[in-house]
Amino acid sequence: METETMIQDEAIAKNEKKLKALQEKLNILWEDILKSSLLINHIMQGKIDKKLFALYMFETYHYTFHNARNQALVGVVGKKLPVQYMKFCFVHAEEETGHELMALHDIRELGVDVAKQVIPEPLMNTETLIAYLYWISATGNPIQRLGYSFWAENCYGFINPVISKVKDTLKLKDTQLTFFIAHSNIDEEHALEVQNMILKFAQTDEDWNAIEKVMTTSLKLQGKLLDGVYEEYTRLIKGEDSRYNFLKSLN
Amino acid sequence: METETMIQDEAIAKNEKKLKALQEKLNILWEDILKSSLLINHIMQGKIDKKLFALYMFETYHYTFHNARNQALVGVVGKKLPVQYMKFCFVHAEEETGHELMALHDIRELGVDVAKQVIPEPLMNTETLIAYLYWISATGNPIQRLGYSFWAENCYGFINPVISKVKDTLKLKDTQLTFFIAHSNIDEEHALEVQNMILKFAQTDEDWNAIEKVMTTSLKLQGKLLDGVYEEYTRLIKGEDSRYNFLKSLN
Amino acid sequence: METETMIQDEAIAKNEKKLKALQEKLNILWEDILKSSLLINHIMQGKIDKKLFALYMFETYHYTFHNARNQALVGVVGKKLPVQYMKFCFVHAEEETGHELMALHDIRELGVDVAKQVIPEPLMNTETLIAYLYWISATGNPIQRLGYSFWAENCYGFINPVISKVKDTLKLKDTQLTFFIAHSNIDEEHALEVQNMILKFAQTDEDWNAIEKVMTTSLKLQGKLLDGVYEEYTRLIKGEDSRYNFLKSLN
Amino acid sequence: METETMIQDEAIAKNEKKLKALQEKLNILWEDILKSSLLINHIMQGKIDKKLFALYMFETYHYTFHNARNQALVGVVGKKLPVQYMKFCFVHAEEETGHELMALHDIRELGVDVAKQVIPEPLMNTETLIAYLYWISATGNPIQRLGYSFWAENCYGFINPVISKVKDTLKLKDTQLTFFIAHSNIDEEHALEVQNMILKFAQTDEDWNAIEKVMTTSLKLQGKLLDGVYEEYTRLIKGEDSRYNFLKSLN
Repeated sequence: METETMIQDEAIAKNEKKLKALQEKLNILWEDILKSSLLINHIMQGKIDKKLFALYMFETYHYTFHNARNQALVGVVGKKLPVQYMKFCFVHAEEETGHELMALHDIRELGVDVAKQVIPEPLMNTETLIAYLYWISATGNPIQRLGYSFWAENCYGFINPVISKVKDTLKLKDTQLTFFIAHSNIDEEHALEVQNMILKFAQTDEDWNAIEKVMTTSLKLQGKLLDGVYEEYTRLIKGEDSRYNFLKSLN
Repeated sequence: METETMIQDEAIAKNEKKLKALQEKLNILWEDILKSSLLINHIMQGKIDKKLFALYMFETYHYTFHNARNQALVGVVGKKLPVQYMKFCFVHAEEETGHELMALHDIRELGVDVAKQVIPEPLMNTETLIAYLYWISATGNPIQRLGYSFWAENCYGFINPVISKVKDTLKLKDTQLTFFIAHSNIDEEHALEVQNMILKFAQTDEDWNAIEKVMTTSLKLQGKLLDGVYEEYTRLIKGEDSRYNFLKSLN
Repeated sequence: METETMIQDEAIAKNEKKLKALQEKLNILWEDILKSSLLINHIMQGKIDKKLFALYMFETYHYTFHNARNQALVGVVGKKLPVQYMKFCFVHAEEETGHELMALHDIRELGVDVAKQVIPEPLMNTETLIAYLYWISATGNPIQRLGYSFWAENCYGFINPVISKVKDTLKLKDTQLTFFIAHSNIDEEHALEVQNMILKFAQTDEDWNAIEKVMTTSLKLQGKLLDGVYEEYTRLIKGEDSRYNFLKSLN
Repeated sequence: METETMIQDEAIAKNEKKLKALQEKLNILWEDILKSSLLINHIMQGKIDKKLFALYMFETYHYTFHNARNQALVGVVGKKLPVQYMKFCFVHAEEETGHELMALHDIRELGVDVAKQVIPEPLMNTETLIAYLYWISATGNPIQRLGYSFWAENCYGFINPVISKVKDTLKLKDTQLTFFIAHSNIDEEHALEVQNMILKFAQTDEDWNAIEKVMTTSLKLQGKLLDGVYEEYTRLIKGEDSRYNFLKSLN
């Protein structure tokens, strides 16, 4: 019994090292995005306007709409999941349910009459992210989606300065930024649970590779989503044809 | 505002009548099953043995294995679900997760070495029930699966006498009947939530018809499952070829 | 090389024996259905009317609608299928595509204005068959659906006398029975292909068991479908509440 | 009748204009890829080696493996497809079945012992393309996947010079380039069928937009796939850690 515990502790200690390495890779990925993203640089220079923020929140609405669904899908398709991990999938799905409505709320706070407006279809890069998240939830290593949660629930250290800048520039209150504020509170606890799941259930090199692959790919696709938002905004500002033309009058 | 509340109350009062009618149809279905089921009659005559109970619990294991999964599937595929109902799907899925392990536990308590035994594939009628539950979770009216939950979470009034008889006949303790005992406790609360969901979200005749259809069909298929168990047991007892031959020595 | 051929021939000879045994089991299943089915006895006594035939064809429409889809699904989900079998799945799916329209055509020939009529939802037993066919196409042994095709493409020996009786009783021409006439021509070739697939790709006992299981279950569910049709017809004739009330005036 | 035909002709004439516009957009997309792709420029400069070509063919193997499957999926999930289009989906799926084996054949011809080698998992950009193709096949406008086929079956005008360069540089025979040679023959006919499907079934602006969206996105993702191949090759050549290290000795 004692030996068993020791071995398990050893295994967890080993996994903690791997988790640290994962976090370090994540830091590098984030730094790269923060440095190279035209959207984030635009924001940090205090140049964001309501049009751009609304456009960004619409795209956020789109992928957030699917997060609970693809999270639960992991539990639906996995036929040999540990009970604890399967429960995590459903609990986590339940907690994410409806979060896209916060995005709509915040858009409404900017002065967009969401009820009257048909929400435009997601941009290409947004749809690619959505497609990828369903794909890695429905197929492959059943714990790999933790790689997405690992950064998504744990991103506030990186994006809080960006949100603060948005808040200052657009003079928004916390109640007008519910998507980010509420998330950053909820997600702190989530982040710990996600780490706990990884420490417990990532046992083989394949597991760790799959988690890292999904972390890297989904974060890069999120970076592309930001690029797509900025491109579309540029089109809008230049007066080119855009599905977001209805935001033109927003000031 | 006041008018709105009144209308809503009226609507709920109307739905409560419909729910009562649903319950009455359910009572009739149950009475029919209790009267005509050879398995239940065999049990109530005090003739159950460990072989039969183990065989029944293996089949219970099979469909229970899928309950959390097809419950969550409702939330995954529904693209226009009310947030509260979608959350219910995932919460309920989480609560059902792993319940099949209780069935295995109770089989082990009967003296079957489950770890050493390859669990036989589900019988035909069991598989038909499983297939149907995925089908009505993945397609059709998104609230229709409540018709299954309506009887499944609410069946203890009907089956408690049967379980008691099993308990007495086989001289089992509560700790050897965890599947039924634990469920009957958990499910009391579930039953109320299910009724609450129906009262709130069944709005059209189509909704009520879909719920009733799934209630009726899934309970009849459950009845067939019992028939299938009894047939297989008869085969086993007669010394005919059976996938459950390994239970022969169980006394 | 020579030895290899011989072994292969031996294997095929062995499989031909198994196929013969499968056919014998099928014969017994069919005899049982032909003997015990109230619907078939009703027909063979020359008592069928247009109402009953239309009702039956609507239910036939329903499950036929899904046949091409669940057949193709086998090729979509199987990740390790032999190329030849995967091609068979798609070719066969293509050939089944649109056959439900023949059922509608024949209903129209009976004098039902299908265009004006909302087609009622499938009866319980019809839906159970549909659900089962998707289930065994999406999960389990990837060649097991051949067990369904084995009887479905090969049923005309058994049901031709029944169709003849329908034709005589209702004084229908071949052009008013396109579903059965066309099928019986097309399916002859299909039947041979299905047998060829089984002979080639059923290699283990598991394969043969899975094919037999699906053959038996789907044919029994088809028998239940016939029972469901007859029950609904009885309800209709007795003036009880029926989704097929619109057929009442059909004479 | 005459008027009807005229209207239909008018409609087809209108669609032919739209198809021409689609083709023009496609030309621009291709030109952009041909100009900016590091991989294609590398090839056109006569610098490709067997390592790079094998690496590219492995990634080609990966997405080609899924083409028949996601093509058939369109026919499986669409509940209101025109019969002719549904048949097209299955016929086309059947024709694509097993094409990934041609890629493996050509890799073998380069001297790689594929049988002994575990095929590495797809690169990130390859997996993103695969995920996207399943996504747009399973959801959204049921004819949108034609946008992918429109360029994929019709790409030989653009890539033949590239293939010729590969052939010359690596001194390959046609029998060592079966994937491209066979495809370019088969696909000519496919291309016409795809155009025919678009002309016939693209009826609304939504249809045309959906087709264009999928054409553009999937071709851009294919461009990214090429980028991913080149990056991985660069890593391999530089002696960095690569899943394709086993190709190092290939000369």
